[in-house]
Amino acid sequence: MTQPIGIGLAGFGTVGAGVYKNLTANGDLLTQRLGARFAVRRIAVRDLKKRREVSAPAEIFTTNTDDLISDPDIRIVIELMGGIETPLAFVKKAIAAGKIVITGNKALLAEHGQEIFRLAREKRVPVFYEAAVAGGIPIIKIVRESFVGNRFESIHGILNGTSNYILSRMTDTGMDFAPALAEAQQLGYAEADPALDINGWDAAHKAIILASLAYGFWLDPAEIFVAGIESVTAADIRFASELGYSIKLLATIKAGGGNAIEVRVCPTLIPKQHVLASVHGVFNAIAVRGDVVGETLFYGRGAGQDPTSSSVLGDLAEAACAVESPRFCYGFTSHDLYGKCQPTAEAVSKYYLRLSVKDQPGVLAQIAGALGDSGIGILSVIQPESLVEDSVPLVLMIHDAPFGAMQKASEKIAGLGCVKDTPALLHVETFS
Amino acid sequence: MTQPIGIGLAGFGTVGAGVYKNLTANGDLLTQRLGARFAVRRIAVRDLKKRREVSAPAEIFTTNTDDLISDPDIRIVIELMGGIETPLAFVKKAIAAGKIVITGNKALLAEHGQEIFRLAREKRVPVFYEAAVAGGIPIIKIVRESFVGNRFESIHGILNGTSNYILSRMTDTGMDFAPALAEAQQLGYAEADPALDINGWDAAHKAIILASLAYGFWLDPAEIFVAGIESVTAADIRFASELGYSIKLLATIKAGGGNAIEVRVCPTLIPKQHVLASVHGVFNAIAVRGDVVGETLFYGRGAGQDPTSSSVLGDLAEAACAVESPRFCYGFTSHDLYGKCQPTAEAVSKYYLRLSVKDQPGVLAQIAGALGDSGIGILSVIQPESLVEDSVPLVLMIHDAPFGAMQKASEKIAGLGCVKDTPALLHVETFS
Repeated sequence: MTQPIGIGLAGFGTVGAGVYKNLTANGDLLTQRLGARFAVRRIAVRDLKKRREVSAPAEIFTTNTDDLISDPDIRIVIELMGGIETPLAFVKKAIAAGKIVITGNKALLAEHGQEIFRLAREKRVPVFYEAAVAGGIPIIKIVRESFVGNRFESIHGILNGTSNYILSRMTDTGMDFAPALAEAQQLGYAEADPALDINGWDAAHKAIILASLAYGFWLDPAEIFVAGIESVTAADIRFASELGYSIKLLATIKAGGGNAIEVRVCPTLIPKQHVLASVHGVFNAIAVRGDVVGETLFYGRGAGQDPTSSSVLGDLAEAACAVESPRFCYGFTSHDLYGKCQPTAEAVSKYYLRLSVKDQPGVLAQIAGALGDSGIGILSVIQPESLVEDSVPLVLMIHDAPFGAMQKASEKIAGLGCVKDTPALLHVETFS
Repeated sequence: MTQPIGIGLAGFGTVGAGVYKNLTANGDLLTQRLGARFAVRRIAVRDLKKRREVSAPAEIFTTNTDDLISDPDIRIVIELMGGIETPLAFVKKAIAAGKIVITGNKALLAEHGQEIFRLAREKRVPVFYEAAVAGGIPIIKIVRESFVGNRFESIHGILNGTSNYILSRMTDTGMDFAPALAEAQQLGYAEADPALDINGWDAAHKAIILASLAYGFWLDPAEIFVAGIESVTAADIRFASELGYSIKLLATIKAGGGNAIEVRVCPTLIPKQHVLASVHGVFNAIAVRGDVVGETLFYGRGAGQDPTSSSVLGDLAEAACAVESPRFCYGFTSHDLYGKCQPTAEAVSKYYLRLSVKDQPGVLAQIAGALGDSGIGILSVIQPESLVEDSVPLVLMIHDAPFGAMQKASEKIAGLGCVKDTPALLHVETFS
């Protein structure tokens, strides 16, 4: 048996402790399967005195991440610290020192992926990040390796379990957003500060990583459209259902015309019969369409100590191979098929537009007129039973239109005398 | 740019031609992503004169597979010949000559995996086989690499698209097996000789490969229970539906007690709300439960020129890395957690038992008595409306019982005077 491969673990929170726990529990099996052994030599934490559910020898803990870098027997560092600036500095130092890096930090990669992978390529040090997207679902390896022979036509993902849990509960019970969020927090599915989960940015970070990997260039987070689920109402879910749709926080990534791609993360109506509509609760799923492989779907737990650990253990196995062997790929490669994001305003989609209107003749004519003036067509109109006294809901399904034109038309409609409240405008994805 | 990596392609049927076509179409992209180039140097076929839909330079064709072995510039051979003995001899020669092997031949690996991978390990030559199981779904890489840190609790798969298409049509339309098969043949979803698809053995070969990989030892095909869908009737599908189940040709692979595993491939009732029940038509899906990752599911096209090519291209990319680098794993590794199959007769399951009985008092008492004498309990009984004159159907859902005992009890029941025709006995999987 060869010497064990030394690991430095930066961060011992939920996922970090899970990696240590599962590496201990299944270490022998991993060794038999791989022919390599691992030894966690140092664990960097912020507070040495914090009480921990998973125990590790006291002498391997440190508060100084430099101790992981300076130990020549540490060949692989696992970054599970959270935050952005501190892990960025640590990861850059680790790469510069020739350590193989594993990270589960989606915000770090979405914001600084370009810089990190440029450095990795220069130093010929691989960076692995399976745990950064969709927890236990091995979507990074699938996109990077299994589907390497494919041009990606589209990737659609339910990438945030908290949002999906809340929308699932709203759909199942008819409850509104606020009580569903409260329930998710009570069950531990949403954090005390759920902002990133709810506002779409946790899913957007994952979408940026997936899109960058699939399309071979790093997206600027400022260029994609991101909206959260706070504004989705129980009424929207009910009306969508009457029309044959479910509402999901969906990441939509598509090859567009020329070398542009289209990326958005927002509450989206999807046909109930599409397999993504059956993804309930805290589960994640990603539908990938490649020009060679056709339609595929990958489903599993998108967060949590154990599922995310599983991805880190998979990365460790690959890192173990990389310790001894040169590699073609250091975790990300560019190619020249694509190179920019389509501007949000130009991206074409179908829409759901819910209005609250005065109960008087001629209302629909005015609204249809406003849409027609902008060159926007209506697919169908339903006037559901009113839920609130003195207000009549009117729901329009809108034909393919550029998002910018649709937003402007919606604002114009909001200004009509017959329209009360702010219109609710949601994307509709038909996967065609 | 380094020299291209030489490929020898053995077999130019549907999949072989697809690999050539897609490697040509997406070769530049593959090169940009990988940093490696490929060149198909020889293609071995049985008949040089056969007209082909995909064209390749005439001078690279040969009828002698030895030409692929003897060319020193061919580093990777792709075996897509079909059959067993000829490809076995070819693969063994290729490994002995130090060529990296890619194969999509499920029957070859299910029958001779142990021998092939022993040789591969001795010669330190990797063998890749993503295309052998579930077409475009990268389940081999997921089980072998992504989930390497997991003990596999269970793997459930819909692994034969032809069977799934036929059962889906029978479910959707109420048609019987024979016309559904005829329709599948007409649409090209079933071969002129559909025996292996229909009798369960195509799925069984894939299940043997998956089980062997996940549990670290090569299964003897004679030790697993395999049944086909020929005997499933429209009535069974209707009665199962009334009870809340769908019937699927399901591969069930489970860690059992001690170091034994349980493997069966047969028409199986699964709860309609389980995600595998939503896998329709020619699609395949595999639900994998690992002790770390939890529940996962992978879905896609299980056959066809392009989806299967996608898997071969993924293997080619991995093979390209292996050309230059030593590897820990040559495609299969054993470990000591498991080592045998539970005998079929001892494997415990729930069952669906459909009888055709005489319309007279005391029938249920006699049948319940026969089951009770064998220590087998009844979960529920339904007496659906009779479909045939003078024959009364009686459907029993049976409690957990060893398959051997259940088969004996079923034979005993068949011999009762009140029972007409042969009982239909199917497994029920509740995924608990």
